[in-house]
Amino acid sequence: MIDRDQLKHNLNAIREKSPLVHNITNYVVMNNTANALLAIGASPVMAHAIEEVEDMVNIASALVINMGTLSPQWVEAMILASKAAIKKGIPIVFDPVGVGATPYRNKVAATIIAECKPTIIRGNASEIMALANDNVKTKGVDSTTSSNTAVNSAKLLAKETNAVVVISGEEDYITDGKTTYKVKNGSKMMPLVTGMGCTATAIVAAYAAIDKDYIRASVSAMATMGIAGEKASSDSNGPGTMQLNFIDALYNFDAYTLTQFAAFQIVEE
Amino acid sequence: MIDRDQLKHNLNAIREKSPLVHNITNYVVMNNTANALLAIGASPVMAHAIEEVEDMVNIASALVINMGTLSPQWVEAMILASKAAIKKGIPIVFDPVGVGATPYRNKVAATIIAECKPTIIRGNASEIMALANDNVKTKGVDSTTSSNTAVNSAKLLAKETNAVVVISGEEDYITDGKTTYKVKNGSKMMPLVTGMGCTATAIVAAYAAIDKDYIRASVSAMATMGIAGEKASSDSNGPGTMQLNFIDALYNFDAYTLTQFAAFQIVEE
Amino acid sequence: MIDRDQLKHNLNAIREKSPLVHNITNYVVMNNTANALLAIGASPVMAHAIEEVEDMVNIASALVINMGTLSPQWVEAMILASKAAIKKGIPIVFDPVGVGATPYRNKVAATIIAECKPTIIRGNASEIMALANDNVKTKGVDSTTSSNTAVNSAKLLAKETNAVVVISGEEDYITDGKTTYKVKNGSKMMPLVTGMGCTATAIVAAYAAIDKDYIRASVSAMATMGIAGEKASSDSNGPGTMQLNFIDALYNFDAYTLTQFAAFQIVEE
Repeated sequence: MIDRDQLKHNLNAIREKSPLVHNITNYVVMNNTANALLAIGASPVMAHAIEEVEDMVNIASALVINMGTLSPQWVEAMILASKAAIKKGIPIVFDPVGVGATPYRNKVAATIIAECKPTIIRGNASEIMALANDNVKTKGVDSTTSSNTAVNSAKLLAKETNAVVVISGEEDYITDGKTTYKVKNGSKMMPLVTGMGCTATAIVAAYAAIDKDYIRASVSAMATMGIAGEKASSDSNGPGTMQLNFIDALYNFDAYTLTQFAAFQIVEE
Repeated sequence: MIDRDQLKHNLNAIREKSPLVHNITNYVVMNNTANALLAIGASPVMAHAIEEVEDMVNIASALVINMGTLSPQWVEAMILASKAAIKKGIPIVFDPVGVGATPYRNKVAATIIAECKPTIIRGNASEIMALANDNVKTKGVDSTTSSNTAVNSAKLLAKETNAVVVISGEEDYITDGKTTYKVKNGSKMMPLVTGMGCTATAIVAAYAAIDKDYIRASVSAMATMGIAGEKASSDSNGPGTMQLNFIDALYNFDAYTLTQFAAFQIVEE
Repeated sequence: MIDRDQLKHNLNAIREKSPLVHNITNYVVMNNTANALLAIGASPVMAHAIEEVEDMVNIASALVINMGTLSPQWVEAMILASKAAIKKGIPIVFDPVGVGATPYRNKVAATIIAECKPTIIRGNASEIMALANDNVKTKGVDSTTSSNTAVNSAKLLAKETNAVVVISGEEDYITDGKTTYKVKNGSKMMPLVTGMGCTATAIVAAYAAIDKDYIRASVSAMATMGIAGEKASSDSNGPGTMQLNFIDALYNFDAYTLTQFAAFQIVEE
């Protein structure tokens, strides 16, 4: 069981070390992702040219691979960057946005898993099930099923890939195939803000940059997301203002609140 | 004359069916467009790789083609996606951002009209006049003239292309070349928020996804935009906060308000 | 010494003439940049296709070259656009985002300086020192040093390039290598909003479009940024809401406030 005080330690570590998180991510969410990383205390950089991704990885502490608006050149950059990240020993967090929606996405996701060897995979329930080759169809980039139905797929995927797998949803699940945690923080308005899942991926990367226990890093991240989401949602009239109140909530987030309100438990061991 | 109750029906239909709207759109507005579609109740997806656009269209209910930050590869994807959309019989909404500003934009817009056969074309007055080959110069992406001066161009364009043409501006005009509607909702602050026109295009697509009467779908969309704009503008200190209050207004929009406050009339039949 | 009334004159000139600013900029900040330019009274356009950048420059009053998310095709467009801008005699404002972080960025920045001959270069302290070949390492896109340590590098760079060089930071410095101004407006929350530096570059371009005294244009711009930042920061709970309150502050900015509160001085002549 994760020591509750470790969550506080992790958040403080992000703020002290301000780890550089290199994002090869989609056009829709770049601005939010950068702002979320700054707000939590990390340092974001976005760079995708094959001419520089390896050098950027070499000054970074974590790498985010997000295939939301993918194209062949970007996938090439993702693979190059990941190989540099593996060599350097920094965590790679993969966000398989929209996998299950088109054959091309399925093919690219399989390639990325094989070549990039992600340390952590974060997706919604449909995406995790699609990756585990369950017969599920993603509706564009939105999930068509609830997170708890994907837990077995996540465990299978974790075993196959040696990655920690994170399902985000009304309840979040984090598993390495053996131990499985559930995090219950969050707000129903979160899926109505575009890119909230992508932000979760980036926040996972920020924690993974400072905590090599990737299950614990992921639990810290998802609890942070959920609690900030609850706060932002209660301050907002809708998903528009929520988007920026969420950034404010991350910025004003104190480590004590995280320790106090993180609602996580082991569901299986 | 459009039955006022049909507007309510249309908005409710978007929320019940949550149609998937596939956007091949510009970098500037992707985030706003996605959030606006989520807020109104639709499901957005952004994808531009030629490797997948046809497959994405095959799970979508409407396609948006927006040439704001165009380049040859993206135009190729737009044409591929449109051909799939024609085959599938789903509406294609074309936003000719900045047409009239450069010869390349003019050429691409002509190609798109010829090859993609858009169901609906939405632009500002300058853009619609440029498409109709009037001798008008667009100032970058902003209109240089008021919407009512472009009505004849819109009618001409509608007849030539068999598309419903929507001019957005202080007053919006919707025409198929025969019947012309005017929608008078809106706020003067709307053109100061970048991409508000692109958002209108996406909202038109959401309505077109659930209402095959494309004039009625467009009137529903422009009234929705205008009323939400009035609400957001009265809540905002400037165009910055307006951008997100507008998303909140779409989210909180009730169908009764739309039926009650939609200010549309036939100006010609 | 800059005449204080000239600042008021400059801001009014932007609002009267609404100069078209053509941006070849990075994906992360496009939306904010466009909104900031609209809010101050200018007219933004984003276009990067080599097929049209020269034509777009030909209707523009200033060009922004920002290498935040660079790739070879975009660099090619930047060079083409700059050559058209030189021919037309409009100012080119270069933002060397992240120079010093990777060899590729260093190489591209050197090429841009050699080929595009920027009129004004705006960067943070690390970036300006990297451009002046000081032995400094940029942390992704964030500065690792304070602005005053970079003043000598800025002067050297200005002499070498014949550009006005602007260092933004807690204090801003503007120099042509001989005369150096310091601007002390601003808020500590500004670096926590992603792309605030890129916004500064765009606002510099808006002023340069209407004032050929590029030191004065840059001082006007940095004072405008700083005062709007102070206002927005005092209205905000964090960097999320600050991002949009800043746009509102630009929009509501009156020329009298600028004249009154601009905190600039000559530090060297």
